[in-house]
Amino acid sequence: MDYGKKVTASCPATVANLVCGFDILGMALNDPQDEIEMTLSDVPGIRISHTDGYALPSDPAQNVAGAALLDLMKEVQEPVGFDISITKHIKPGSGLGSSAASSAGAVVAANHLLGNRFSSKDLVRFAMAGEKVASGVKHADNITPCIMGGVTLIRSIFPLDIVQLSAPPLFVTVVHPQIEVRTSDARQILRKEVLLKDAIRQWGNIAGLVSGFLQKDYDLIGRSLEDVIIEPVRSMLIPGFDEVKSRSKEAGALGGGISGSGPSIFMLSRESETAIAIEVIMKEVFQSIGIDYKTYVTTLNTTGVKVKSEY
Amino acid sequence: MDYGKKVTASCPATVANLVCGFDILGMALNDPQDEIEMTLSDVPGIRISHTDGYALPSDPAQNVAGAALLDLMKEVQEPVGFDISITKHIKPGSGLGSSAASSAGAVVAANHLLGNRFSSKDLVRFAMAGEKVASGVKHADNITPCIMGGVTLIRSIFPLDIVQLSAPPLFVTVVHPQIEVRTSDARQILRKEVLLKDAIRQWGNIAGLVSGFLQKDYDLIGRSLEDVIIEPVRSMLIPGFDEVKSRSKEAGALGGGISGSGPSIFMLSRESETAIAIEVIMKEVFQSIGIDYKTYVTTLNTTGVKVKSEY
Repeated sequence: MDYGKKVTASCPATVANLVCGFDILGMALNDPQDEIEMTLSDVPGIRISHTDGYALPSDPAQNVAGAALLDLMKEVQEPVGFDISITKHIKPGSGLGSSAASSAGAVVAANHLLGNRFSSKDLVRFAMAGEKVASGVKHADNITPCIMGGVTLIRSIFPLDIVQLSAPPLFVTVVHPQIEVRTSDARQILRKEVLLKDAIRQWGNIAGLVSGFLQKDYDLIGRSLEDVIIEPVRSMLIPGFDEVKSRSKEAGALGGGISGSGPSIFMLSRESETAIAIEVIMKEVFQSIGIDYKTYVTTLNTTGVKVKSEY
Repeated sequence: MDYGKKVTASCPATVANLVCGFDILGMALNDPQDEIEMTLSDVPGIRISHTDGYALPSDPAQNVAGAALLDLMKEVQEPVGFDISITKHIKPGSGLGSSAASSAGAVVAANHLLGNRFSSKDLVRFAMAGEKVASGVKHADNITPCIMGGVTLIRSIFPLDIVQLSAPPLFVTVVHPQIEVRTSDARQILRKEVLLKDAIRQWGNIAGLVSGFLQKDYDLIGRSLEDVIIEPVRSMLIPGFDEVKSRSKEAGALGGGISGSGPSIFMLSRESETAIAIEVIMKEVFQSIGIDYKTYVTTLNTTGVKVKSEY
């Protein structure tokens, strides 16, 4: 055991669902990213401090990073402890995978300190315990791209079956309107049943989107970014959504929609100029509505959580 | 116009749905195939004869090949006629795309006689008029693989959006129990609404299956061949289904299910030995039930309808 060893981890924001892939698809972004500093200790237990002002709980069992680490530690025989300092740049409740970044970052950093004994799939499994603390549900569609990078598919959650999908380079423009949409609320407004004909249209789009990524067919990606089931309901919680979406597509976006359960909206583009033009549109829309916002112009992250050793 | 020119077309059987891809996925088989002979005539109109004993209608408007050709002829300016002789080896009502083979074969042969002026997508559009005659619904999930070969995706039917998916070599074992399941009946027993949680599981599998084909990942193909929505209902119409499926998987099948709306059952395998062992199982099951059957051990067809000129 390398007690005293310290690492820093950069933990990317993620976009879950990717419009038509509710609960199964996700992608990682290069901006924003959280930072986690973690030191391996011979004092058992988890000690969490935050350098930001979000007042997140520091009790490990109540903290998403802590809960994930507790799950990981069940499978470590030796006595170990972790001292963690978290600096969040991904705002909680943004729909950009803030909790996933903390839980995924924590388990990747811990795994590094423990000599990389666990597989990516193990790490996803541990980090899901963090997501359960955050939203009451063990979901993996943010955690998986956060850990693995790129675009990922959760074919099945029980048993866990993860597929990494290659994808062409993509620019991503994000706007985070500063309103609150709780994941649990966003889930509750969904109908428990859907029309079979809508489900068929949805799975056509999912199949098209997966093919578009793997075949690097930008037009097919664009045509497939359509959601007839979730977006019509959830977008009502996000003022300005329809205008951002229609104007972004007019400006050349491949398409886009709600990031995770919102309120952030993301748009994919093939060219950086388009991604920048879309940021201007997003700013105009939320300025005119009078809602504070934050925007990002970034790219698809292909590495996932990055760990650096610091002695 | 090359009046008097004669061609023959080989028109492959097809498996629609591919377990989890209801109404969107399909694949072509090398066996069985129909044969169409077609002569371009300067006598306007369509004259259809059948060399088989299926008593299919020869009135063009009532015949699937005729209806498809009538749709094609609307977009031909010159006066043309077609003399057609159809030999069906794909039994009507088998669930192996019998009507699609006739309508797809007819429009591909006619296009050849007309100097290949229409695109594959045009041909799919014309042939859909034939499917409407057969089942009352303009569907394309048999026609498209029949025309293009391989595995195909109908991302959207209105507007028509077709994607060809590359796939690894596959062996296919088929059993056609000689019972009648009408496509329209098989469609009517489906519920109009499905549980969102089942739809999510289904689209995880569809995304997995598409990735499996494109990434040539046989295990992923196998894991994704699961249908929680259509098969549990429709398989009740097919005696022996559960036994064929479970024993085939025990024998090494990647997976499989109902071909189209049934009653044929198909199983995919990586190795020819497995495909042959599955045929034995299928024969045993239907012999023990006392239902007549026909089996095929074949492979994924990658060419679609093949046309040869004959002067």
